[in-house]
Amino acid sequence: MKRIEQVVLAADLAGTAVFAIEGANAAIGAGLDLFGVMVLSLVVALGGGVIRDLLIGARPPSAVSDWRYPALAFAAGLFAFVFHARVASFSPSLLTMLDAAGLALFAVAGAVKALEFRVPPFIATLMGAVTGCGGGVVRDLLLARIPVVLVTDIYASAALLGAVVVVLCRRLGCPPVVAALLGGLACFALRMAAVRFGWQLPKIAAGA
Amino acid sequence: MKRIEQVVLAADLAGTAVFAIEGANAAIGAGLDLFGVMVLSLVVALGGGVIRDLLIGARPPSAVSDWRYPALAFAAGLFAFVFHARVASFSPSLLTMLDAAGLALFAVAGAVKALEFRVPPFIATLMGAVTGCGGGVVRDLLLARIPVVLVTDIYASAALLGAVVVVLCRRLGCPPVVAALLGGLACFALRMAAVRFGWQLPKIAAGA
Amino acid sequence: MKRIEQVVLAADLAGTAVFAIEGANAAIGAGLDLFGVMVLSLVVALGGGVIRDLLIGARPPSAVSDWRYPALAFAAGLFAFVFHARVASFSPSLLTMLDAAGLALFAVAGAVKALEFRVPPFIATLMGAVTGCGGGVVRDLLLARIPVVLVTDIYASAALLGAVVVVLCRRLGCPPVVAALLGGLACFALRMAAVRFGWQLPKIAAGA
Repeated sequence: MKRIEQVVLAADLAGTAVFAIEGANAAIGAGLDLFGVMVLSLVVALGGGVIRDLLIGARPPSAVSDWRYPALAFAAGLFAFVFHARVASFSPSLLTMLDAAGLALFAVAGAVKALEFRVPPFIATLMGAVTGCGGGVVRDLLLARIPVVLVTDIYASAALLGAVVVVLCRRLGCPPVVAALLGGLACFALRMAAVRFGWQLPKIAAGA
Repeated sequence: MKRIEQVVLAADLAGTAVFAIEGANAAIGAGLDLFGVMVLSLVVALGGGVIRDLLIGARPPSAVSDWRYPALAFAAGLFAFVFHARVASFSPSLLTMLDAAGLALFAVAGAVKALEFRVPPFIATLMGAVTGCGGGVVRDLLLARIPVVLVTDIYASAALLGAVVVVLCRRLGCPPVVAALLGGLACFALRMAAVRFGWQLPKIAAGA
Repeated sequence: MKRIEQVVLAADLAGTAVFAIEGANAAIGAGLDLFGVMVLSLVVALGGGVIRDLLIGARPPSAVSDWRYPALAFAAGLFAFVFHARVASFSPSLLTMLDAAGLALFAVAGAVKALEFRVPPFIATLMGAVTGCGGGVVRDLLLARIPVVLVTDIYASAALLGAVVVVLCRRLGCPPVVAALLGGLACFALRMAAVRFGWQLPKIAAGA
């Protein structure tokens, strides 16, 4: 296995576990039953990667051809269901940090994999954002609410920044691991700073 | 045509007709117009199979390459629109039984087709559930409500059981038709028993 | 590049710009932030074509392999965000006409591309409607409301008519450009007439 594939795999698996637990929490909060909890775990953990793979033509998506992805998401979701009291007692700032880490991992993995499939650089950055935010968007669709990522907060923008950094670094000839590290750090730092300082994107006031 | 392909085809077509009528009923109940009724018929009848085919890499999905699928769904939906008064007078227990039969047919067809495409067994069982429940999930998304399958009832679990039985039987060397029959019966029996006895999956109480 | 590919490309790009602006307007009206506005622009402009390409097996979708599509949608969405006051002052009848033109362009491009991929004629007409209406349906899903196209109005029916005309003309041996023009005109005319005269599809009254 090439170095770059190992980077994608490790980032993908770590992000998968974090996002599966978040999906399970959202499902428990919305009153879903055990099956609904498992579905939300799988969807939040794998949705972004599946959408990316369908779009860049990676057939079948790695979440389908590689049993480790769904098995890990399944196990993490079950863990969150069984130990929900313990998971619910995590401090919000720890959860925010884990989520930002998952976002950074997915944004980097998404952009790198898209570049491997030789899509144009502009689209590879979009694929980083799709990988990072896609699972959360499908989660909100299933819970019949407007995806939070569309309404508020610097979240997808952090994923875009991370993907832009990865793509630029690769263009400039950085080694894959360095590009991935820089991109992940940029995404993580922007996301944490946005939460810390309450940064928001501009919006057009109603009636303007 | 090989024996196993005939099994998939027959189960798929029978499930398609049942689910198209259910989709039309849901659309009429939600006040959609004739076009909305036809879309819901197609979506409920074909949605699960299309999602499965996209995920396992069956390109293009059989609902697109084989005109019999959309034509049958179209005809069944039109039938339900024109004879809606008669369809609405079916007894609820008959509708439940037809729906359980459609679920069993799709779960079996989905798992068998996934195995044909050589995805791992664990994922083939998930594909059985996706085929059985996917159409209903898309229906609920289009009607802007949380998919019922996520919230309540032993429904997707029945599809999962049927798919597990099919996959296990094939692994143990059963002939395809026997595996499909056993899987379909398991799914149908669990679904009917769950309705009859009011079985539910565990849920975490709000505030727990 | 063959003549027919130029027709698809030109129709696709013109429709993309119109639909991106409409997506941005819908996002601004729903109170989304800048990122949400850009996402809705991309989704409304590219969603129908991406769904079509996934279904007919055009891999990867042209919106991913060809950077002109997302770049044009991006630019049009940004334009609508920055100059929202000016866009909001467009007369409703101008917007209706632009939308009908975009619908006609997409319905034609969708049917023609599906025929190129040798799907059955019946399904090629469905693909025309999917291309024309898919972006709007995804927009409404993201805004957590029932897709308007399912509930009311002769809209998708116009796309279907345009696609039927294209497919029939090609079957009868018309040159590609003539078939595309006739189909586009049919779609545009039916849509404008439906708005002008308030035509609606039949619906089954609640309680019927």
